[in-house]
Amino acid sequence: MHRHAIRNGVLIGQDEALVPVTDRAVQSSFSVYEALRVVDRHVVHLDDHITRMEYSASAIGLALPDADWQTWIDMLVAADDIVDATMRITVYGTAQPLAFITWQDLLTYPDEYYDTGIAVTTFHGERFLPTCKTGNLLLSYLALEDAHSKGAFESLLVDREGRVLEGSRSNFYLIRGNVMYTAADDLVLGGVTRKSVLRAARQLGLETVMQAVGEDELLAGDTMFISSTSMAAMPVTKVDGHDVSCDIGLVASICALVRKWEIE
Amino acid sequence: MHRHAIRNGVLIGQDEALVPVTDRAVQSSFSVYEALRVVDRHVVHLDDHITRMEYSASAIGLALPDADWQTWIDMLVAADDIVDATMRITVYGTAQPLAFITWQDLLTYPDEYYDTGIAVTTFHGERFLPTCKTGNLLLSYLALEDAHSKGAFESLLVDREGRVLEGSRSNFYLIRGNVMYTAADDLVLGGVTRKSVLRAARQLGLETVMQAVGEDELLAGDTMFISSTSMAAMPVTKVDGHDVSCDIGLVASICALVRKWEIE
Repeated sequence: MHRHAIRNGVLIGQDEALVPVTDRAVQSSFSVYEALRVVDRHVVHLDDHITRMEYSASAIGLALPDADWQTWIDMLVAADDIVDATMRITVYGTAQPLAFITWQDLLTYPDEYYDTGIAVTTFHGERFLPTCKTGNLLLSYLALEDAHSKGAFESLLVDREGRVLEGSRSNFYLIRGNVMYTAADDLVLGGVTRKSVLRAARQLGLETVMQAVGEDELLAGDTMFISSTSMAAMPVTKVDGHDVSCDIGLVASICALVRKWEIE
Repeated sequence: MHRHAIRNGVLIGQDEALVPVTDRAVQSSFSVYEALRVVDRHVVHLDDHITRMEYSASAIGLALPDADWQTWIDMLVAADDIVDATMRITVYGTAQPLAFITWQDLLTYPDEYYDTGIAVTTFHGERFLPTCKTGNLLLSYLALEDAHSKGAFESLLVDREGRVLEGSRSNFYLIRGNVMYTAADDLVLGGVTRKSVLRAARQLGLETVMQAVGEDELLAGDTMFISSTSMAAMPVTKVDGHDVSCDIGLVASICALVRKWEIE
């Protein structure tokens, strides 16, 4: 099938979703984006994603186009008869902002990732403007490549104070006793799924503390997991090659609530 | 005139120098680049630029295409009958690396910038992988926008220890007495023009010290200036709105040597 995309409200072929390498915004990562989950023709938490994109754009001074995102998305869903998909909005801050909506098959992961947990590694580095979702992603790219090269699924970013803030494409949580820790809002991306994870944790009787744990505390946690739009909540059972304890059932309960609230 | 460009050794129209927004390397700033100065059909210090690009690519694990840069540049110079220009090599680390050579009119600046000096502002922020020239440029972009919004020409990046490291698109120097200070090699981009500036300074009898000055020392310098491929050496006479002393003649002497060595 020849897939389509949207460029500033106009339906185009996805192979026409291109940007000029001569443009300063393209050259300078002056862009914002959102990755969306489409389930049964419906974008999950679209309002939250748009709110976050507007925040990211505002923070870097990028003027978004005058867009009706829901209408544009509906055009694309109709044109390609999309049922389930991972969709991406990308806006480049060119002289006339260029907004693209593109899509790919729904990102899913093997059941075993949820049933037995995934391996993560740690990577020292700090994201620039950590609360914003921009195209300035080289650190995240390299951190994930590093994890993959070591057979791990995700990389946890550690700042220069030794705090474990977030994954390269996920948020991070550590549970010890009855308390779930995750980094303060001003240090990490305000994950759309993170909101649901915090709600689910509280509903399951956990106390939530918005405070990053130290790298040296990773091996002393009872349970660690990561979250993202595509992953929901995924248990972590290995850190830098060390097996770590994990209450897989607890993470599965959080994951189930996150997924349930997506379609309510 | 319809300008051309080179894509992986093939002559194309410059309006075809495009990259797909769906590609992970494009989305993640996984790219390296060089800005070249073409004078009288000849690229200035091409070997230095290629060496630096190879270093940048190697540092982030980006495999460059098997390229004959001089031949590719010559193709473009011949096709568009280029005499003087600012040329750009950009390589995206896509599955098959995509190397572009594009060009624009030679970047030049008004004489008064050299005769009476330019204004700079300071901006707090640290470049990721500062020795590498990559597409991860959002900090530099925002710093320069900040300078422009304040009527200044360039922004000086200050790290969290208060050290003035470099400009958003230039290297930075402060002369006090007989000593010229510039940041250590591992903290900044190894400017191609910086090599010439250091050589010129020594030839003019200055001692060179590879050590960044503190933000609080900016107003106590005798002379400050910035350098880049397009600027050569440009005197600074205003910092964050404060007039500062500057030996314009000395900077002009350095600038003249830098330009002279370009065409030797």
